[in-house]
Amino acid sequence: MSHVENGWFHEIHNYMDLGISLAVEIEEVLFQGKSDYQDIQVFRSKKFGNMLVLDGLIQCTEWDEFAYQEMIANLPLYSHPNPKKVLVIGGGDGGVLREVAKHPMVKQIVLCELDEKVIEVSKQFLPKMALGFSHPKVTVCIEEGTKYMQQTEDRFDIIINDCTDPVGPGLGLYSREFYENIHKVLNPGGILCSQGESQWFDHLLLKDIITFAKELFPRVAYAYAPMPTYLGGQIGFILCSKNQETKFSEPVRFLSDKDLEVFGMKYYNSEIHKSAFCLPQFSKHRLGL
Amino acid sequence: MSHVENGWFHEIHNYMDLGISLAVEIEEVLFQGKSDYQDIQVFRSKKFGNMLVLDGLIQCTEWDEFAYQEMIANLPLYSHPNPKKVLVIGGGDGGVLREVAKHPMVKQIVLCELDEKVIEVSKQFLPKMALGFSHPKVTVCIEEGTKYMQQTEDRFDIIINDCTDPVGPGLGLYSREFYENIHKVLNPGGILCSQGESQWFDHLLLKDIITFAKELFPRVAYAYAPMPTYLGGQIGFILCSKNQETKFSEPVRFLSDKDLEVFGMKYYNSEIHKSAFCLPQFSKHRLGL
Repeated sequence: MSHVENGWFHEIHNYMDLGISLAVEIEEVLFQGKSDYQDIQVFRSKKFGNMLVLDGLIQCTEWDEFAYQEMIANLPLYSHPNPKKVLVIGGGDGGVLREVAKHPMVKQIVLCELDEKVIEVSKQFLPKMALGFSHPKVTVCIEEGTKYMQQTEDRFDIIINDCTDPVGPGLGLYSREFYENIHKVLNPGGILCSQGESQWFDHLLLKDIITFAKELFPRVAYAYAPMPTYLGGQIGFILCSKNQETKFSEPVRFLSDKDLEVFGMKYYNSEIHKSAFCLPQFSKHRLGL
Repeated sequence: MSHVENGWFHEIHNYMDLGISLAVEIEEVLFQGKSDYQDIQVFRSKKFGNMLVLDGLIQCTEWDEFAYQEMIANLPLYSHPNPKKVLVIGGGDGGVLREVAKHPMVKQIVLCELDEKVIEVSKQFLPKMALGFSHPKVTVCIEEGTKYMQQTEDRFDIIINDCTDPVGPGLGLYSREFYENIHKVLNPGGILCSQGESQWFDHLLLKDIITFAKELFPRVAYAYAPMPTYLGGQIGFILCSKNQETKFSEPVRFLSDKDLEVFGMKYYNSEIHKSAFCLPQFSKHRLGL
């Protein structure tokens, strides 16, 4: 499980033969353990603050987590005219909660996380992310995302699927059945934003998801953001709306410099929102967008 | 020099204590040698085609080079109303030449490369990039970029500084003196586009360059593009124009889908051009842009 050698943590992508790998210099192993679902490690890295690793894959570092969390939260929130109820699937580190809770329009947030141990560890070692859990709007439900979606009678305006890679506990969150349940659980006009891997490495998986998502939702788009501590330096987002009028690349509310300061934005702004949906030629062809 | 272990090439950033490193799986060492200026290696990688490495740092892989080459060439070319003469500094692999030579407006291209050995090796092992050298518009000058700029009486509409990192032979290409010489060698209305490292790792260097560039040029901007096989997955570009009217984020000529096909664009399109200049909040603050 450890993959640590001479003070460096080496990420190992067992589920894909990628031919490229990241290593991060560490100063201390803060936590190493096994939950019922996965291996959990936390390192104090030399340059990037504390770093959470699940099943050998980097989930977040304190240094660049803001780019991912701000984008996966704000792309759907600023594409919806009036988001009141938000469901977060996964997201046990609390970073997405922290960003969603900033929105005055949002009145209620449910987090559905499979692995309670990830929440515990994050509260201890990633306090700047886990502060999301302390917000009074937040309710936590310890449950598998796919099961929750089948059973819940609750309905939401936004669902954020902050899932791990399509292996182990994350696998079910990439299926057509899961997207059908998301469609059912979203209010009219509701929006899904799902972690969407890499347009460089995972385009076959993405093309499949986008194809079946288009059969379920009138609007489907793909966006991306840089993340230097993820392999390839980029993470994508799949966005689906039940509202025919949604134009994902045109945020419905613009943020002034003052607003950005109030919200403490380090990555997101309204121009970044628009530009995140501009796809390179190769990706347009590959994803059929 | 080799940094190869168990079939993986490990990039080592001797000049910076980055705390993060990339490794690429290789199948064969195609070339390993030393020129008068630097160590040169070419590997056949498992997933990314042939890969050029100078002084232990990845310069390009056949798999993703198009993103970098198309952007460093087309951002300035599509920001200039009538680019006829182009100077490329560095770029010994020929990829930038290949992209610049596609432009019917461009009548003459000079490439100034210090290290003839890089050109030789690229012609042998990176033929899809090196085909840029075979274009009749191209003249090659084997000379240090800084010296060429001091001495030349030629004048250009576009200068593309396709330099290595700020260490060893590349160091002089990041100085104020070099930018003063670029200003002198550019025609009225001329535009520089320089390889601009990473807004995540190199912001102190970038802030310095942008500050002195603003004293020399009425328009200065920063853009970026993803490059999965560069550390952090992103490479930047510093753009400077002598023309007060230049708005870098608004290309002066738009490309239709048909144009993009004719030019064989795999990365660049007019929306990508615009979006490349949208900076995240942290970067606006750090770079003063």
